Amino acid sequence: MSAAGKAVGHDELGRFIREILIKHGASEPDAEIVAQGLVWANLRGSDGHGVSRLPRYVKLLERGEIDAKAQPRLVHDRAATFIIEGGHGFGPVAVMQAAARAVERAKQTGVCFALIRHTTHTGAIGRYAQWIAERGCAAVLMGAGPTLMAYHGARVASMATSPIAIAVPSGNGPIALDMATSTISNGKILQARATGGALPPGTVLTAAGEPTTDARQAEILLPLGGPKGSGLAFMFEMLASVLAAAPIQAPALGPQKRTRHTGNTAMLAIDIETFRPLIDFKTDADALAAVVKALPRQTGFDEILLPGERGNRTETVRRKSGIPIPAKLWNELESVAKETGVKMPAHT
Amino acid sequence: MSAAGKAVGHDELGRFIREILIKHGASEPDAEIVAQGLVWANLRGSDGHGVSRLPRYVKLLERGEIDAKAQPRLVHDRAATFIIEGGHGFGPVAVMQAAARAVERAKQTGVCFALIRHTTHTGAIGRYAQWIAERGCAAVLMGAGPTLMAYHGARVASMATSPIAIAVPSGNGPIALDMATSTISNGKILQARATGGALPPGTVLTAAGEPTTDARQAEILLPLGGPKGSGLAFMFEMLASVLAAAPIQAPALGPQKRTRHTGNTAMLAIDIETFRPLIDFKTDADALAAVVKALPRQTGFDEILLPGERGNRTETVRRKSGIPIPAKLWNELESVAKETGVKMPAHT
Repeated sequence: MSAAGKAVGHDELGRFIREILIKHGASEPDAEIVAQGLVWANLRGSDGHGVSRLPRYVKLLERGEIDAKAQPRLVHDRAATFIIEGGHGFGPVAVMQAAARAVERAKQTGVCFALIRHTTHTGAIGRYAQWIAERGCAAVLMGAGPTLMAYHGARVASMATSPIAIAVPSGNGPIALDMATSTISNGKILQARATGGALPPGTVLTAAGEPTTDARQAEILLPLGGPKGSGLAFMFEMLASVLAAAPIQAPALGPQKRTRHTGNTAMLAIDIETFRPLIDFKTDADALAAVVKALPRQTGFDEILLPGERGNRTETVRRKSGIPIPAKLWNELESVAKETGVKMPAHT
Repeated sequence: MSAAGKAVGHDELGRFIREILIKHGASEPDAEIVAQGLVWANLRGSDGHGVSRLPRYVKLLERGEIDAKAQPRLVHDRAATFIIEGGHGFGPVAVMQAAARAVERAKQTGVCFALIRHTTHTGAIGRYAQWIAERGCAAVLMGAGPTLMAYHGARVASMATSPIAIAVPSGNGPIALDMATSTISNGKILQARATGGALPPGTVLTAAGEPTTDARQAEILLPLGGPKGSGLAFMFEMLASVLAAAPIQAPALGPQKRTRHTGNTAMLAIDIETFRPLIDFKTDADALAAVVKALPRQTGFDEILLPGERGNRTETVRRKSGIPIPAKLWNELESVAKETGVKMPAHT
């Protein structure tokens, strides 16, 4: 790549992230799971959930907000339900452990509903939904986390951009939807700031709670469809946080103003074979995908895309040509590398 | 009420609907469940799911598209999963039976995931979510149904306006979100047609698949947030229809163009007490509701509303002052009444 940035192979990027995390106290297997998650997001073009998070992870580790030594603990365990206590360890470690257990339970009981609480940043929850769907199950994940989005009508950040991810198997691998309940992502704001572009109206508020289209003034995200997006975020806080006895928003917004970096996830895994043969499900899923792909298009649309299809394509390209790292991020990674003596990733 | 319409007490409206349905072959208990559903929607101000549907129900009954004699059958039954086959009978009869069974199973197993397939119109699925939450469970329902909404980028109707409903218990009764995955409802279009108002841009297409703001030209609904709304509708079709071996959209859009009036529902019930004492859940749910209600407001907002709060208030008012029936609907109900000799509802 040009002077504007580098391209790094995914294996090499994974090696780099792993070594940095180990230097900050992570065990080898934990570092591997976290690195895989960041690289997965980068491969699929979700760069906001990729290696760009590493400098922040390092800060959180240094401050003790991520506890590198914490191991997930099973604190409630029945045939079709469990709770994993993350203990403010690495989010992906707790959620991947939950995904493996949820699949195992769903294969026995037909369905499993799990709560994973007190994690730190889990990365894109679509990763876990896809992982579950690769194992013959349908998955629904709902997340709760830091306060970044206005509740409909509020002039302050008062909800998480709580994501929902849904994935099912198909003949061409999992089909996975992964979306925030905000109108746009924080990543889009950062991009608009960098390029100087304006944001669409109705997407953000200033720090003072006034509408703006200026990315430099944007501080608070607005919910998707007003009461719909904030209604979903509110209910995900109920299902993922309140049900797990780990509320985030009430303590953050109440007089205590408790805002430790934390997150909770609700996870549903459904064994397809409980309801019908997996092969038949895949046949009908493929038929649905095929009719949707073939729909007549609106003016201005070259193609109809399935959930996750753009990410699948980006992954194919980036597995070959590497993951682009913008110059600014490269410099940040160099600082992180220097502190710990880790070798920067080989690049082109 | 004025010459523009009548106001009818909810009991009297229920009596009227019940008698009409019995005249068209429904059993007394089935007619009661369907009538309760329509009246419930009217009480809460969701008039598009209320008695305005009755003339259409009568047509579907006459054509045999609703089978008044069909009884729901349990076709798959395990500890935490079941499928109810609706057999094109009354939707509310099948879904209420499922809700009762799902609560019973959730109390034993912690969680229950059910599919209800081949129903006719179920009414607002928020009703069942709220009913489940009244029994100490959290509920998530996802619906699939007739093809009314464009998939993102398509110029034809290609998805249902697939709703999602989520409800949890609180100290003040259930808090229930019930929302379609379209930007606006069909009801809003009908309203704009009646009043001559314009529709917001980006909400509908003409029959030819071109954007419009003219309600008289509106034929196809657009999905909430583009790929997000249609992604949810697509995944709900996977979870509620494909998983139940009862696909709707692929047969409707494929060469067969099969478009019989039908619907499917996926239902998750989670017993709160499996995870923590219900009283503690309610305390934390109330705390979340309280901080949200007290948030500082954007300019132009008099109040922050919780999911379902407006419906709760309308219900309080309409239980006292009756359900308003516009003149046009009143005339339609008179036709339906005349055909069967049922006495019109008493009104003010």
